[in-house]
Amino acid sequence: MATSRLLVEYDGTNFAGWALQPGLRTVQGELQRALAVLARREVTLTVAGRTDAGVHAWGQVVSYEGEPVDRASMNGLLPDDVAVLESEAAPDGFNARYHAVSRTYCYRVLRRAARSPLRLRTALHVRADLDRDALDACARDLVGTHDFTAFTPVETHHKSFVREVRSASWVADGDQLEFWIEATSFLRNMNRALVGTMLQIARGDREQTDFAALLDGAPRTAAGPTAPAHGLALASVRYPDEPDPPLS
Amino acid sequence: MATSRLLVEYDGTNFAGWALQPGLRTVQGELQRALAVLARREVTLTVAGRTDAGVHAWGQVVSYEGEPVDRASMNGLLPDDVAVLESEAAPDGFNARYHAVSRTYCYRVLRRAARSPLRLRTALHVRADLDRDALDACARDLVGTHDFTAFTPVETHHKSFVREVRSASWVADGDQLEFWIEATSFLRNMNRALVGTMLQIARGDREQTDFAALLDGAPRTAAGPTAPAHGLALASVRYPDEPDPPLS
Repeated sequence: MATSRLLVEYDGTNFAGWALQPGLRTVQGELQRALAVLARREVTLTVAGRTDAGVHAWGQVVSYEGEPVDRASMNGLLPDDVAVLESEAAPDGFNARYHAVSRTYCYRVLRRAARSPLRLRTALHVRADLDRDALDACARDLVGTHDFTAFTPVETHHKSFVREVRSASWVADGDQLEFWIEATSFLRNMNRALVGTMLQIARGDREQTDFAALLDGAPRTAAGPTAPAHGLALASVRYPDEPDPPLS
Repeated sequence: MATSRLLVEYDGTNFAGWALQPGLRTVQGELQRALAVLARREVTLTVAGRTDAGVHAWGQVVSYEGEPVDRASMNGLLPDDVAVLESEAAPDGFNARYHAVSRTYCYRVLRRAARSPLRLRTALHVRADLDRDALDACARDLVGTHDFTAFTPVETHHKSFVREVRSASWVADGDQLEFWIEATSFLRNMNRALVGTMLQIARGDREQTDFAALLDGAPRTAAGPTAPAHGLALASVRYPDEPDPPLS
């Protein structure tokens, strides 16, 4: 059967997250409803990054079995807070979740005395002084393969808590600090728990030396709080390069 | 009497503009309500840039007669979509409107096929191809002193329709184009009518050579439509440098 792929952006503010949940407004629910209209049948989407309630995305990738749909028609059927940026045929059997090589997330922190009405939905406002050197040191510690048990809820059932972080860095952009992280995949709430813990250290509420120790399978209670969802966005998903077309 | 000054940011989406209007939600109304609580009397604000319904600001300046108020207390009394960034004493007699040397506005245009849920409130989505060279040529024409009668509603009563544009340019930022303009002051709707007309030219719907002719007192009907409010924001206001303190 034909396989298709969508690139999707959403403002997570008014969604109960990506995943379909009975009686709740979800990104998957809105997309599947619009797809069903165009495909004239039920379609089930597979997603690269299962974002939580309130988390945004401007580079989410989803796949489904079926023909590509017209992007403009999809956007006409979708509400204002979700849009399809690209709609195309994918290689047979393409799976947005299992074939992804890595995901990149961005967490935005607004550093100034006053809150920002224009960035209320997209950046965490932190009034406290933050030690930038401490943040940079944490980011350096993160790169590599670690056991992230300390950064996901205790009730989470993952086969393995080991993940490989390919890059992690804090980047200043005017009065904002952005935390960019690329990893093969992420545990539930992992990015937000990492940010919450790093901010504790940057405020001087936790020892810098603690951080590396947390990356070796420490219990959840050893790490810091989960940062709010609205600062986080799924920025992009990488896939292996498409194979060359056969010489025929 | 003491004079004070506030630097203000707002998301214009849910406001009927800056200026107080009976029965409508306005930025001036919200700020004056909060100020009255802290000052324990009615306070009337003077504003640098009287923005219309839906227009944003991240560098609005207002003045009033009275003592400075505590910024954090003000922000606690204000709704989420307006915030005071700075609150300070100003020189006696300081007037945010009359003493302003220039205002700078920014108009954002999103250029891509699909709309953007995350920038829905802050950028005009234009699907059509835009001729960047034509936009740049219009910006060059704008710099200098011109009669902007063609770019303000016919019912507007200004003493003079002549304004001096100090700088104007279109700047690319990823998939956005931003129009930045600094002028001594602006006529009502002037920025939005300028952008609406420039976009007509950039889409090929109007002759490039028309633009300079419109800047010489042509009637309103000769220019293009008024671009939507949500792309526009007041970015900053300039004042003469404070005088040196007296040598005493």
